[in-house]
Amino acid sequence: MSAKSGKLYHGTAWYPELWDEAVILHDIARMKEAGINVVRIGEFAWSTMEPSEGEINVSLFADIITRLHDEGIDTVMCTPTATPPIWLTHRHPERLHVDERGVLMGHGSRQHICTNNAAFRERAARITEAIASKLGRLPGLIGWQLDNEFKAHVAACHCENCLLLWQGWLEQCYGTIEALNEAWGAAIWSQQYERFDQVPHPGPTPFLHNSSMQTAHRLFSMAGIAQFADEQAAIIRRFSDAPITHNSSIAFHVDNERLFEHLDFASFDTYASAENYAAYLINCDLFRNYKPGRGYWLMETSPSYSGSLQSAAVPHPQGYVAAESVAAYALGAEAFCYWHWRQHRSGCEQPHGSVLSAWGQPTVGWMNVLEVEQARRALEPLLLASQPAKAEVALVYSDRAKTFMATEPLKGMNYRGLMTSYYARLLAMGIHRDVAPEGIDLQGRKMLLTPFLPYVSEAFIRKAITFVEQGGTWIIGPFTGGRTEEHTIPTDAALGKLEALGGVEACFSYPLDGSGAIGEAFGIQAPLGMWSTVFELRGASSVGTIIDGLTPGYSFLTEHRIGDGLLVMLGAMPTGEEGDAMLRAMFDHYASRAGATLRVDATSGTLVAPRVEADGRQLWAIVNMDGRGGTVTVPDGTVDAFTGELIAAGSLAVERYAYRVVRLPLVD
Amino acid sequence: MSAKSGKLYHGTAWYPELWDEAVILHDIARMKEAGINVVRIGEFAWSTMEPSEGEINVSLFADIITRLHDEGIDTVMCTPTATPPIWLTHRHPERLHVDERGVLMGHGSRQHICTNNAAFRERAARITEAIASKLGRLPGLIGWQLDNEFKAHVAACHCENCLLLWQGWLEQCYGTIEALNEAWGAAIWSQQYERFDQVPHPGPTPFLHNSSMQTAHRLFSMAGIAQFADEQAAIIRRFSDAPITHNSSIAFHVDNERLFEHLDFASFDTYASAENYAAYLINCDLFRNYKPGRGYWLMETSPSYSGSLQSAAVPHPQGYVAAESVAAYALGAEAFCYWHWRQHRSGCEQPHGSVLSAWGQPTVGWMNVLEVEQARRALEPLLLASQPAKAEVALVYSDRAKTFMATEPLKGMNYRGLMTSYYARLLAMGIHRDVAPEGIDLQGRKMLLTPFLPYVSEAFIRKAITFVEQGGTWIIGPFTGGRTEEHTIPTDAALGKLEALGGVEACFSYPLDGSGAIGEAFGIQAPLGMWSTVFELRGASSVGTIIDGLTPGYSFLTEHRIGDGLLVMLGAMPTGEEGDAMLRAMFDHYASRAGATLRVDATSGTLVAPRVEADGRQLWAIVNMDGRGGTVTVPDGTVDAFTGELIAAGSLAVERYAYRVVRLPLVD
Amino acid sequence: MSAKSGKLYHGTAWYPELWDEAVILHDIARMKEAGINVVRIGEFAWSTMEPSEGEINVSLFADIITRLHDEGIDTVMCTPTATPPIWLTHRHPERLHVDERGVLMGHGSRQHICTNNAAFRERAARITEAIASKLGRLPGLIGWQLDNEFKAHVAACHCENCLLLWQGWLEQCYGTIEALNEAWGAAIWSQQYERFDQVPHPGPTPFLHNSSMQTAHRLFSMAGIAQFADEQAAIIRRFSDAPITHNSSIAFHVDNERLFEHLDFASFDTYASAENYAAYLINCDLFRNYKPGRGYWLMETSPSYSGSLQSAAVPHPQGYVAAESVAAYALGAEAFCYWHWRQHRSGCEQPHGSVLSAWGQPTVGWMNVLEVEQARRALEPLLLASQPAKAEVALVYSDRAKTFMATEPLKGMNYRGLMTSYYARLLAMGIHRDVAPEGIDLQGRKMLLTPFLPYVSEAFIRKAITFVEQGGTWIIGPFTGGRTEEHTIPTDAALGKLEALGGVEACFSYPLDGSGAIGEAFGIQAPLGMWSTVFELRGASSVGTIIDGLTPGYSFLTEHRIGDGLLVMLGAMPTGEEGDAMLRAMFDHYASRAGATLRVDATSGTLVAPRVEADGRQLWAIVNMDGRGGTVTVPDGTVDAFTGELIAAGSLAVERYAYRVVRLPLVD
Repeated sequence: MSAKSGKLYHGTAWYPELWDEAVILHDIARMKEAGINVVRIGEFAWSTMEPSEGEINVSLFADIITRLHDEGIDTVMCTPTATPPIWLTHRHPERLHVDERGVLMGHGSRQHICTNNAAFRERAARITEAIASKLGRLPGLIGWQLDNEFKAHVAACHCENCLLLWQGWLEQCYGTIEALNEAWGAAIWSQQYERFDQVPHPGPTPFLHNSSMQTAHRLFSMAGIAQFADEQAAIIRRFSDAPITHNSSIAFHVDNERLFEHLDFASFDTYASAENYAAYLINCDLFRNYKPGRGYWLMETSPSYSGSLQSAAVPHPQGYVAAESVAAYALGAEAFCYWHWRQHRSGCEQPHGSVLSAWGQPTVGWMNVLEVEQARRALEPLLLASQPAKAEVALVYSDRAKTFMATEPLKGMNYRGLMTSYYARLLAMGIHRDVAPEGIDLQGRKMLLTPFLPYVSEAFIRKAITFVEQGGTWIIGPFTGGRTEEHTIPTDAALGKLEALGGVEACFSYPLDGSGAIGEAFGIQAPLGMWSTVFELRGASSVGTIIDGLTPGYSFLTEHRIGDGLLVMLGAMPTGEEGDAMLRAMFDHYASRAGATLRVDATSGTLVAPRVEADGRQLWAIVNMDGRGGTVTVPDGTVDAFTGELIAAGSLAVERYAYRVVRLPLVD
Repeated sequence: MSAKSGKLYHGTAWYPELWDEAVILHDIARMKEAGINVVRIGEFAWSTMEPSEGEINVSLFADIITRLHDEGIDTVMCTPTATPPIWLTHRHPERLHVDERGVLMGHGSRQHICTNNAAFRERAARITEAIASKLGRLPGLIGWQLDNEFKAHVAACHCENCLLLWQGWLEQCYGTIEALNEAWGAAIWSQQYERFDQVPHPGPTPFLHNSSMQTAHRLFSMAGIAQFADEQAAIIRRFSDAPITHNSSIAFHVDNERLFEHLDFASFDTYASAENYAAYLINCDLFRNYKPGRGYWLMETSPSYSGSLQSAAVPHPQGYVAAESVAAYALGAEAFCYWHWRQHRSGCEQPHGSVLSAWGQPTVGWMNVLEVEQARRALEPLLLASQPAKAEVALVYSDRAKTFMATEPLKGMNYRGLMTSYYARLLAMGIHRDVAPEGIDLQGRKMLLTPFLPYVSEAFIRKAITFVEQGGTWIIGPFTGGRTEEHTIPTDAALGKLEALGGVEACFSYPLDGSGAIGEAFGIQAPLGMWSTVFELRGASSVGTIIDGLTPGYSFLTEHRIGDGLLVMLGAMPTGEEGDAMLRAMFDHYASRAGATLRVDATSGTLVAPRVEADGRQLWAIVNMDGRGGTVTVPDGTVDAFTGELIAAGSLAVERYAYRVVRLPLVD
Repeated sequence: MSAKSGKLYHGTAWYPELWDEAVILHDIARMKEAGINVVRIGEFAWSTMEPSEGEINVSLFADIITRLHDEGIDTVMCTPTATPPIWLTHRHPERLHVDERGVLMGHGSRQHICTNNAAFRERAARITEAIASKLGRLPGLIGWQLDNEFKAHVAACHCENCLLLWQGWLEQCYGTIEALNEAWGAAIWSQQYERFDQVPHPGPTPFLHNSSMQTAHRLFSMAGIAQFADEQAAIIRRFSDAPITHNSSIAFHVDNERLFEHLDFASFDTYASAENYAAYLINCDLFRNYKPGRGYWLMETSPSYSGSLQSAAVPHPQGYVAAESVAAYALGAEAFCYWHWRQHRSGCEQPHGSVLSAWGQPTVGWMNVLEVEQARRALEPLLLASQPAKAEVALVYSDRAKTFMATEPLKGMNYRGLMTSYYARLLAMGIHRDVAPEGIDLQGRKMLLTPFLPYVSEAFIRKAITFVEQGGTWIIGPFTGGRTEEHTIPTDAALGKLEALGGVEACFSYPLDGSGAIGEAFGIQAPLGMWSTVFELRGASSVGTIIDGLTPGYSFLTEHRIGDGLLVMLGAMPTGEEGDAMLRAMFDHYASRAGATLRVDATSGTLVAPRVEADGRQLWAIVNMDGRGGTVTVPDGTVDAFTGELIAAGSLAVERYAYRVVRLPLVD
């Protein structure tokens, strides 16, 4: 879109169907004042569009799109399927979502319907067709959003209809019930089935369900919602050329890699607090990579604070939202959008931050919005003329790994939290990184990181080994490779094929927490934790050795040459402050060794987003994210990209939440 | 009753239907020894009175009332409707209470029936009629209690029958479904309804229900139970002139103002711990005001400790129960009653404190009871000849506000806790206060306080503004006025009409917690918290200004002259020790300015209850509540009301849990 | 068995039905290497044995038993009834276990069927008969285990069928509904029933159920599972002479005394952490006493750590498992068995520790297993030629008391935790003790301890008083005797008959926590807590007096001479460090006074298990359990039982987790 539109978008969600004409006029005027150039509408408006079954009228939205267009504001139109009207579920309990305890969800909030229900699918198709056919060619319409935040509030549905679908899905996956029994090891605890129609949902049981079944059920649910998205997108494409997305998140019960496969661009929602800015930035570095080469959208973030009847977040400090926007744009966003424009007067999110209040006045977020707009205008020419630099260091983020960990959290392990904390170290070290799904393109990469990936597929191994053979460094672990595709334990070796490839034998695989394990590597001694594997060498060299605990003398960190590259196995999780230092030393060592040059010397709270201009010169967008200000070391010959003025080589200061864009001298 | 009876009551709950004749004789003898002059019976005894459906016999209770009367003990008779017999619910699941998760409550405890169920209502009417007709004219019967602790264990019922009633109630409230949709802003999230019969209970949903609906459902439930009380009271009145009450509490899911509207006197139960004596006293200052001019009853409190199969409280320190009784009587109680006389041998409350043990011996509470009786006898002549002084300072306590906050607790806000903590400051400052419902009479008041009142009704505003015009000071906030009657956000101004009245514009309304907001007022700087509104002046003067955070320079505390009075707007909650000091400075400043003279100089744990004698002279009942002893400054000419001896002006000492009654010189 | 087999068993659970022939061969070879001489199989294998209803084939297990026997390994065969196959419950919701919230448990884990269901009982009987008839006479089969961990994951079933059984059980217990109503005091809260068919399960209610009903329902459930065990055992006995057990635990919802009544030997599972070794040892001292004179089995413990998809324990420190085994054998175990041999590749317990990994390699537990085997071989001759010394000090452990406390936990009291902590003091003091059920044989005892026993039966009192009359010391309390058999409060005296017997009157019975109560005894002052009774003397002497709080001057610890013995009443729980010192002083005082000589002077983490050889000489098996090493004072003439060498009298050192066996000189 940016190619077409030639602009960076600054947008907001808006619900004109909830307000009268005076408010609509007021809002549009204020949007222009604030520099809003794209608006997202239609989300949740099903009952406005189709107040009684079959009586569809979307002219309000056609009118709004046209009026916005006349004012120079583009529109992203949404399908309203997250909020089925009352006539869809009243007296139809069989259409409702059923949770894992068997409780039926009712009307009155959202996501209460079973998205696999045929009656729902039929009505969803009809409303989407109506919207697409009426609005699909309007000049102001520049994109589509399907539904809203799939599976944000619910996970797998346990209704009777889903039971049949689940059984059918299993039959398709396994062919025969014998194959399923074997794959799941279902002879254990006499779980085995005689026929597919006997397989239940993983509902209430006295103790835990089979891991294979739990993981399969989660994958089944994620496949279903992606298939719904595909179905909806296909309808829209019959009537519109505008690209289609969905506002997803790493927090939801979806497989984003699969979800975005047949969509046109990626977008996400985030409401991380200012102090947790790494949790904000990981989204930018990740969603950029769901549709490589295509800008992503930050579809929702708060202009100041999030909230609901049962929560109220801390408002962002002044300046932080602008810093967020600079980071988002610099890391590849086409759009930075708020949720939402005007405070809801009703519902359950009245306390949520907005740009205007319910009575039409600027909120505490208003000043943030003006700052964002100022930054956007300044950045636009530079960013449209450059691209985010492809990172030499790639960190794999897998919703399938998240699924495995949801099934098997051991002591409360949380994939997203572990990954964000791992990611935050790279960020703090100034290592430019792509966070990418398993389908990542490894061309041009130098270091590949796959922590917390219980199952590593054959295809991934092949791709990664080729990468290593060609000179790459692959750091496997911790907690990677110990499970099969079926969520069972490998029976050939603790880590299956990875051991032979890594030149090691995983001798013991056990929980290190509290066991007194101490590891030594890079001259640092640190406690080791997490479920771990410890190695004997079968060709590899040991880089880290256990010096205390139950298995002293074994290696927990090895490296093995393959072709021109290096396969590094990290079997355990270094913990505490020393563990943090050890991990940083490891990243430092292997990034240097792998020749990863996209790395800056910056204070830890200051982000540098490297970009490449058409002539190959690097731009650095620099922004302080931690509110403490910071410095970045710039090379000789660096100029301010706005003014063209030369900047003294060495330490460049950036104020609290401030940004700079600098152009580096060409090197070759 | 006190007028008729000419006495202060010292009473207890008693369950003679559970014991044999020997125990009954023993108990009555011991009651006389302890000075018990009123007994409450019949509560929970439905299955004794009507062991099989239709076979009613209440002669046991007639006999008990007569025997007690012969011994000089009066009786409050209860209806037993909180514990329906097994024949009422066995094989009648449709009569059972259903909770918000859809779970049916079963027989075996209490409050398990749907109190809106027609079959229940019919049987309840029959047993109540039988009791009233047989016992209503017995000489010893001096009062009635309906049921027991309405909605103590349950909130709104979600049964199918209540669904119909709820839909009917909504139709009555809103007339048309369009009006409901508009009032609730139900276009949001496609919540809108086509017909009333589609509106569900606010049952399980993936995320939160609409606030308007939640609040309405709570109000519906509270209306239903009040209507049941009215219906029951009407039956009794056909057969008895004795006044009717209900033992309520600020902890239950009821609207006490509405509940007591058609009852004859107010009573409450409380089991606050000694260290939380403010939570005890707020009841006395509140329940006095549900039926102004009529003494209230403390219907249940423990002689030493509360308990159940799943709890055991700390026994009260020696002396504390007597202090409680002095405080209760002095603040307007006609009766101070225990739960309960003889420890239960069965059920689920065996561990609950009582006066006698299950084996008939005095408990650790016995000595407390003797101390209470000693105090009661001493106080009786003085208190019967005087009345509690009407307070110049009134604090509004609203169960509707509590309902709004139950719907919208944000970060776990709790109305009762907030109010008790607010109240405790007035108490500690020696400011005599009435805590009163929204229907409060403002005649003669000087300062009106309405914190934590999200919705302020038109009628209340009118009344309060008249009060201000006539010289009163009204302090609004914090957290007051930001919601409409429908629990939506005002669309004209953050605080609706209050802004114009207060001479302010509420510029921003947002959560201050964690935002670094600091306010300055009365020479004190304090952190500000809670969801707040900050002001620009439109005629008012600023008394408190924000000096740090996101909105420096705005006012959080303003005052505005209206007529002879003052309207004060407190937009934010001062927090921490400094915030406490700031609030006290505010109370001090405005109480003085308003000319509130009913205020004493006492150490913070010592209560002074001012009363007025027939000749206009003030009595001060002084009692130490914190167990540390204390002092009160008395004016020149004060005499001991018991002995008539002159007391030296200045600091009068009161020992740990001790009390004094002094008579002040006449002033005019 | 040990008599027959002439060996100490070292065993493991094994699931050959889940693996192929190569693994089976590998496993057996490794077992021999590790010294495994008994294997437990068949547990959970129902669907392997009977994949479709009625198609039973147990030849796999016959083959395994024979092959193991050929290799010198004995087998304990299990019935597989904890894991009913899918055909037993598919489309049969009426057969499923229903929890106390009314939720049906489904297929996919274990214990999901109602064990009282007739269809289940019939199929369970058939599979058990098939197993017993085919395998019952195989030479390698040396024992049977019924089912697995009865009621580990579930408590009482609330299904419709159980409702009928419950009503029938009540009718059998009480005869008439009037008797039940009287026993339960059901007139309270109008709970009383007209007919047995009206009595519900104690399902969801707004507040708590009647205590009598709750306790009865728990006892009913425990009776049902014991009756199922009896039924199953009877089937096996028709085909096999091998003794029968069940792997129980003090953590489950069973009455172990009743459960083992008709079984042949006792066994238990435990997974206590190393630091909580007292929780391990209490099992050894308890399960020895369910079938006196017969060795018990430790049927399951981890070779290193326990785990599941949702947990991972800390691995045991090196040496601890061997210490566990020495303690178990020395305290009377015939067998020390692991759960389990080979890590599961599927299911939900893959993370659980095992001896071999899923890929067939030794785990971190392997070295532990070798150490155990070394100890076992060393100990075998000495232990087979001796018996555990009968303890002079007996502590009663009652699952019925646990049931009462489950009904009435007050402030979260936990029977098992309280008992373990009480037990740990005796352990730390070196007092040899039997922990035994209420049916304990008191012959030869010197001190009897019955803490936390709310109901003391007539029969027990008779037995214990006889014991006292003959010279014994019985220490009653704390929290003992305050409830009747029906879980009601006695109406004659706080502690019923115990008061007269103890020469006291329990004047007050109330919760001391937080009340400021201080007691003084044995020259120590300590805070007193818990629900307590305080005494006046009616013939007894006071040993401990309350010196502060609500009831100063009363006694909380008394002693009373009866015949040649002493009845000691401890009414309150001494708390904190001083309380601990006071309790130890009490144990010390009365153990000395009672002439309990089986007591050693050892550092607190070092266990001495006294045993008696055929000639009457004492062996002391000494083992360090706390990992800190320790010392034991040995008398003059003590020799090392392995070498026969004389050991210097005085302090004998034992290294971290090390053991010694010494033989004491004969005394008479």
